[in-house]
Amino acid sequence: MMRAVVLNSSGVKFESEYPAPEPGDGEVLVRVTCAGVCETDLQLIAGYMDYSGVLGHEFVGVAESGELAGQRVVGEINCACQKCEYCRRGLQRHCPHRTVVGILNHDGAFADYVVIPRENLHVVPDDMPDEIAVFTEPVAAAFEIPEQVRLDPSLNVIVLGDGRLGNLCAQVIRQAGCSPTVIGKHDAKLKLLDDLDIQTARLSDWDSTQVADVVVDCTGSPTGFEFAVSLVKPRGTIMLKTTVAGTQQLSLAPLVIDEITLVGSRCGPFDKALAALSAGTIDVAPLISRRYPLADAVTALYAARDEPVLKLLLDVRTT
Amino acid sequence: MMRAVVLNSSGVKFESEYPAPEPGDGEVLVRVTCAGVCETDLQLIAGYMDYSGVLGHEFVGVAESGELAGQRVVGEINCACQKCEYCRRGLQRHCPHRTVVGILNHDGAFADYVVIPRENLHVVPDDMPDEIAVFTEPVAAAFEIPEQVRLDPSLNVIVLGDGRLGNLCAQVIRQAGCSPTVIGKHDAKLKLLDDLDIQTARLSDWDSTQVADVVVDCTGSPTGFEFAVSLVKPRGTIMLKTTVAGTQQLSLAPLVIDEITLVGSRCGPFDKALAALSAGTIDVAPLISRRYPLADAVTALYAARDEPVLKLLLDVRTT
Repeated sequence: MMRAVVLNSSGVKFESEYPAPEPGDGEVLVRVTCAGVCETDLQLIAGYMDYSGVLGHEFVGVAESGELAGQRVVGEINCACQKCEYCRRGLQRHCPHRTVVGILNHDGAFADYVVIPRENLHVVPDDMPDEIAVFTEPVAAAFEIPEQVRLDPSLNVIVLGDGRLGNLCAQVIRQAGCSPTVIGKHDAKLKLLDDLDIQTARLSDWDSTQVADVVVDCTGSPTGFEFAVSLVKPRGTIMLKTTVAGTQQLSLAPLVIDEITLVGSRCGPFDKALAALSAGTIDVAPLISRRYPLADAVTALYAARDEPVLKLLLDVRTT
Repeated sequence: MMRAVVLNSSGVKFESEYPAPEPGDGEVLVRVTCAGVCETDLQLIAGYMDYSGVLGHEFVGVAESGELAGQRVVGEINCACQKCEYCRRGLQRHCPHRTVVGILNHDGAFADYVVIPRENLHVVPDDMPDEIAVFTEPVAAAFEIPEQVRLDPSLNVIVLGDGRLGNLCAQVIRQAGCSPTVIGKHDAKLKLLDDLDIQTARLSDWDSTQVADVVVDCTGSPTGFEFAVSLVKPRGTIMLKTTVAGTQQLSLAPLVIDEITLVGSRCGPFDKALAALSAGTIDVAPLISRRYPLADAVTALYAARDEPVLKLLLDVRTT
């Protein structure tokens, strides 16, 4: 048995006696050392994906089985069949048979142990602390932006949302050669971006429309899309980096009239994220708001929902 | 004075005494000979764009002023300032100062005369009949698809809607090397596509999901988008070719989860459309359902709305 943070229809709960997972063929048992709370965890608690099981998909740990035993690892979250059309095309994260760690039919990492397919694991460089490595998954998601849209210095790029993901996306966009502006609501979060010399604006002061070639919506809010449409120039691109549970009342006509391209964007390349974290070109340490022991995960989740915090980490076990 | 089909807040009406337009600097007076009824005309009557003025944006006519006087012409519908950032980038049709013939602050072509900027006009080849040339605008809109999305024979392309635009889009997609399938509701319209050796399916018989690399929504219907999302493969592309007035209840989460790209697409290249119509590689004659004299335009508009017709033409004047 092990400790785990479990979501089911009656809500989210810390359990001290949850069955420990056992690795199947090609899977590795990972002893979790540190995990991060993500906006998606909050959406799952709000009903998104109808998920039940152990939460948590941002983690670092130590492999306890197989050839990697004893090494520190991070893990990609889409567990694919490796056999279908998508897997053969290298699009494992779109495998229709996949499970997703902590999101879809696969117990997550807010626990002492998690089981991950061998091919999803990446070894963490020795000199990278756990509290940096745990950012690999969200940093990878940010690195998906330049994979999906051409970014060059002539483009005006706006990032909506000054939270964890907005911050990381802005850093990656700047690394790709652009000078993004982040529009947000929270002085403290905008200040962190100012400290990185990234241009910021307060939502309440903003009144320009059709000014951006690319808008990246990291708000996780139902109002993000409409705001993005108002900001993007004709023939521009909106990237949706966050999901919103349920349906919204929307008009798609502006997309047709202004020939706007909308790009849905989810997970990204772990290798690029690890390389950037290792080189220190993406700065994640200032994003850590607080750290909690695993037993206080529910408190951390409520804090992430109700307070203007950035990244909350769960210290599961010391290495 | 002239005859004109006028939309205002009390509805659409044929008027026999409407002020004839006068060409300004750089504009040409065009005597309209034939015009086509478009789905957009019906949307305008339903309240889209809050338009009031003379309807009609698909037309062929004879230039009556300037260097083109006496020549048959068709005209692009976006009348741009030619000075702003968009115009300088060759994106006149996205000029923020533009008027749009029969759609936005510019009297349209369901009338004896229409005024069009010189640079919007294209001379019609002598051997092309009016009833073919009048299709230039919608055929150009279809030719915008290969301008915006890479089409190659390996891609499975589905066109939603067996109407005028769906038919033309399917023909253009086939000309680009793909073998599209058109999903529609109307036996007679599907039969026309069968006759062109384009694969068709009845909506009521369709039950597959996530099968298309590219879905082109030509339905003009609020349900088109959701159906398109169900049909497109992860990492696929949805092109929106038609607008829907008002807002709809939508979920954008599938776009993020499946990393779908949504491309809004409107007008297209007149030169390519005229070349294809001239070469006969796009077959439009079978699309003509009926022809009406201008005075019966209101009858034609109601027929276009209420009957399963394809293209209705207005014979404004014989050349």
